[in-house]
Amino acid sequence: MTDWIDEVAWNNDGLVTAVAQEASTGDVLMVAWMNRESLRLTLSEGYAVYWSRSRQRLWRKGEESGHRQKLIEMRLDCDGDAVLLKVEQVGRIACHTGRHHCFFRRLEGEGWKTVDPVLKSPDDIYRS
Amino acid sequence: MTDWIDEVAWNNDGLVTAVAQEASTGDVLMVAWMNRESLRLTLSEGYAVYWSRSRQRLWRKGEESGHRQKLIEMRLDCDGDAVLLKVEQVGRIACHTGRHHCFFRRLEGEGWKTVDPVLKSPDDIYRS
Repeated sequence: MTDWIDEVAWNNDGLVTAVAQEASTGDVLMVAWMNRESLRLTLSEGYAVYWSRSRQRLWRKGEESGHRQKLIEMRLDCDGDAVLLKVEQVGRIACHTGRHHCFFRRLEGEGWKTVDPVLKSPDDIYRS
Repeated sequence: MTDWIDEVAWNNDGLVTAVAQEASTGDVLMVAWMNRESLRLTLSEGYAVYWSRSRQRLWRKGEESGHRQKLIEMRLDCDGDAVLLKVEQVGRIACHTGRHHCFFRRLEGEGWKTVDPVLKSPDDIYRS
C-alpha cells in the first residue's frame, strides 16, 4: 500500500509548494515550502509546519509571533507538486510585516502598490 | 527607476511561483510557474500565460481547452517569490482533468480522496 506522503511529487530538493488559504474567508495568506517531515508534523500537530529554505530548518509557523495556522483541511493538486492548506489564522495576521496576508502588493499600472494595512507592528509582534 | 518586473525574486531557473485564484469565489484553482516573458504577456494579453516546465515553453492557459483565465488582479508577496493572480476562469474548469480546480484530492485519514467531480470529460475538452 502506498503511503499518502509518497503520492506527493517532491522536487529535487525534497520540497513541495504549500499554499495557505484562510478557511473562513478564502483569502490566500502565503506560499511556503514543506519537506516530508514538516508535512507529517503539520498533520500530527494540527498546525502548519513549513520548511524554511533561508534558515534550512523546520519552521513552525507562529513559533515566535504566536500567529499559528490551525489546520482545517489539506489538499493535493493534480500533479502532486503543490499542497493547499485551509487554515484558521490565529490573530488574523499571517505576514511577518504584520499584515493579514503576504500578498499585500497589487500591480497598478507599472508598479507594485501596497494596498493592505499593517495590523500590528513587527516590533510589537517580535519583541522579546 | 526600478522596473516592476525586477522586484520579483526570480529563482535560479528564472521562475516565480504563480497561484491562480478565482476572483468571484476565492477558490484556489491551481499553482504554476511563470518566467519574465510569461508574466509580461499575462499583463499585456490580459489572460494568464505560464511557463511549462515539463514542455519548456510558454503555456497560454486554455490554448487547447479554451479554459482561459482572464486576469482581474495581480499581487506579489512580501519576499517577492510568489505572485497571486485573481482571475475569471472561463468555463469554470481550471484543471486538465475536467474539474473546477486542481486541488480535488483531500487528505482523509491516511489517504488522498478525490472529492470534486469531473465537470467535463478530458476526451471532450481536448478532442481535435
